[in-house]
Amino acid sequence: MPTTKGKSRIEIVTSVMQANDRLAEQNRRRFAAAGVCAIDLIGSPGAGKTSLLEVSIPKLSGEMRAGVLAGDIATTRDAERIAALGVPVVQITTESFGGACHLEAGTVGQSLDKLDLDGLDVLFIENVGNLVCPAEFDIGHNARVVLLSVTEGEDKPLKYPLAFLEADLALITKTDLVPHLDVDLEALRRNVRKIHPRIELNMLSARSADGVGPWIDWVRRKVAGSTESRS
Amino acid sequence: MPTTKGKSRIEIVTSVMQANDRLAEQNRRRFAAAGVCAIDLIGSPGAGKTSLLEVSIPKLSGEMRAGVLAGDIATTRDAERIAALGVPVVQITTESFGGACHLEAGTVGQSLDKLDLDGLDVLFIENVGNLVCPAEFDIGHNARVVLLSVTEGEDKPLKYPLAFLEADLALITKTDLVPHLDVDLEALRRNVRKIHPRIELNMLSARSADGVGPWIDWVRRKVAGSTESRS
Repeated sequence: MPTTKGKSRIEIVTSVMQANDRLAEQNRRRFAAAGVCAIDLIGSPGAGKTSLLEVSIPKLSGEMRAGVLAGDIATTRDAERIAALGVPVVQITTESFGGACHLEAGTVGQSLDKLDLDGLDVLFIENVGNLVCPAEFDIGHNARVVLLSVTEGEDKPLKYPLAFLEADLALITKTDLVPHLDVDLEALRRNVRKIHPRIELNMLSARSADGVGPWIDWVRRKVAGSTESRS
Repeated sequence: MPTTKGKSRIEIVTSVMQANDRLAEQNRRRFAAAGVCAIDLIGSPGAGKTSLLEVSIPKLSGEMRAGVLAGDIATTRDAERIAALGVPVVQITTESFGGACHLEAGTVGQSLDKLDLDGLDVLFIENVGNLVCPAEFDIGHNARVVLLSVTEGEDKPLKYPLAFLEADLALITKTDLVPHLDVDLEALRRNVRKIHPRIELNMLSARSADGVGPWIDWVRRKVAGSTESRS
């Protein structure tokens, strides 16, 4: 989002955010009506969002029906990687929306029309790779996960606080690389909690599959919780 | 930048960009008058912008006088790391500008007042960690460098094209990690050139110092070029 110095800009930004929040509520009602738990994944480019889905979706198959909305500025690469898993996927390329640096509720709502929501239990929404702007927009999700790779450094939760404040779970990814880095995992954990003391926190490597189990259990709990709250 | 669907939003965004471009020209004139070459560094969180400066500034000392503007949403960590090198540094925290996800020309201009520009030959501007939004704003720089770490993956130039289109040099960082990754460096190079065929491209590791020489030579050429164009 641009800075908001003038009064007219503040008014415009406020009205944009209010319109977004109305559309987010519509999305949330659609998810509830269809019995779908929508999980928004945010993080920097290369934080490992698509790799996480590639390792998770096969593990969930048989017990729940998953679908994916993949957000990118350009290319359909992520959708192609997800489609190879045999689950429904819709690619949102924000180039047609002015190269937007995040997903908005309206863009997500339009894309939901292309999915059979009643045929899903969980919808993963892979946001545009950006640790800043996606955190500012409610897209109607039931839960939000922030991914931070160990290569990004332990100071990042302090430098990008909103992404961690607005998430229910922090996933520290690419832990297989830790032996080759100078990263301080204890400081990283401490910095996440300094910003959001009650956030859940898991560490994993999609490559080695270490730590994937607790993340899958978290997804199971979220999906079960959103089904219970409707019954 | 938010999406621009309504006419009034398009007008606002256009006027914001025009105001930015005017202020960018002012900055550029100040750099020229002071004989300073301003180099804007953009890239994702953790792409290695601060580490690059930590390894480069000591190598340039004795032959040119360097200063740094460090942009972040929150914290003064980068400025502290740079100050340890004994060069003038000003930290811009965009939290006071609404948590902006990029530097704008006006913000940079205000920060220039805190530096003795006449005492510098090169000013490194470390933009906010974000591979999307900083590329949209001219801040009056003489050259722009996009950093992409090998851990982010070879598809990123295609997914974040504007950052590569708007840069004069692409620096592929953290090459010491290549043996531990599945990244395809040849494809990465090809993808950078597909977006911007004439961009300069270097690979380096700030940690091992491999490849730092050609980058330092590029800085020397840019600084010499901007001095010549004034004499």
